[in-house]
Amino acid sequence: MKPFKLAALTPPAWVATVEHDPTALLSDHAHCELKAAATAQALLLKHRTNTPLVAELSAMAAEEMEHFRQAVELLHLLGGTLGPVEVNEYAERLLADSGPTRGDSLLDRLLIAGLIELRSLERFHLLAEGLHDERLAALYRALVPSESGHQALFDRLARNLFDARLVAKRQTELLEIEARCAREAAPGPRVHSGWATL
Amino acid sequence: MKPFKLAALTPPAWVATVEHDPTALLSDHAHCELKAAATAQALLLKHRTNTPLVAELSAMAAEEMEHFRQAVELLHLLGGTLGPVEVNEYAERLLADSGPTRGDSLLDRLLIAGLIELRSLERFHLLAEGLHDERLAALYRALVPSESGHQALFDRLARNLFDARLVAKRQTELLEIEARCAREAAPGPRVHSGWATL
Repeated sequence: MKPFKLAALTPPAWVATVEHDPTALLSDHAHCELKAAATAQALLLKHRTNTPLVAELSAMAAEEMEHFRQAVELLHLLGGTLGPVEVNEYAERLLADSGPTRGDSLLDRLLIAGLIELRSLERFHLLAEGLHDERLAALYRALVPSESGHQALFDRLARNLFDARLVAKRQTELLEIEARCAREAAPGPRVHSGWATL
Repeated sequence: MKPFKLAALTPPAWVATVEHDPTALLSDHAHCELKAAATAQALLLKHRTNTPLVAELSAMAAEEMEHFRQAVELLHLLGGTLGPVEVNEYAERLLADSGPTRGDSLLDRLLIAGLIELRSLERFHLLAEGLHDERLAALYRALVPSESGHQALFDRLARNLFDARLVAKRQTELLEIEARCAREAAPGPRVHSGWATL
């Protein structure tokens, strides 16, 4: 496990709370990739004259859509179908709890997107190492390098566009909020389910 | 030029009406790719338990996002930036003129999406062969094979899901409407601009 800078790490026992229903996990994961692609698209359309940001986010959106395709492919292989769109409790609460701007400022949007990528990356590591189903574990192993790049990208964009001390201060605040949202989310076969009940 | 089955072919002189502003053309093209990816996503989410449809459309959405990235990359290289989201007159009129269902039925949505892909493919051929800027022409040459696959996919999905005679009848009606919308769209540096004023 890489030394994630998250304020609270998910206990490895969390894997057992999601692996009983691989198709539900994969469907949730597929929806997370779609949502991530949509977030990248919305951000780049909002800041469309910011050439470096648009270049990096367009590459990221293309990757997220390819991950969506891979998650759907394995989901179908395991006999499942894509579930309905559902609210991502963790991400919604993270946006709601981040303050009155609700992620409207570009700095908050970049930092929150980076934190969601960081938490997802931590979960993908746990899944890659802890899942008993080798097909599922292989998917998560394959996704780790590019998810790691996405997290680094949001971090870099924030540091390129804003004052370093402002970024560090806001990131410290958001890390605490993120850890609470991650821990307290409802349990279940989802990428961002919580571990408070463990 | 391949023998397109469109009801009216774009005259090759159309290329001269778009190539005076390569960055406007590329920006419009990039937005078309985003819109195509969004259409594929909306369709697959609406029919999410239709496994073959979801599998094919998720692959297509990933490709469209990669084309978006390529169009944006060349746009930046030529010194342009992504323009604002604008209404695609041709596509909007095609949907509006297709009748009271406005593309709400799955058959119409598949056939209309296929016709837009077919017209785009015809335009990409014209651009690949007629553009004087080699960097631009190379992009359109590179995109032709996969755009051709997208058109064939919508056609195949329609034929797999609906009665062959119904598909043929509706396609004949829509081909006439499509040709009128394509010809009569306003001129300008856009993938779907018209040629009525030539």
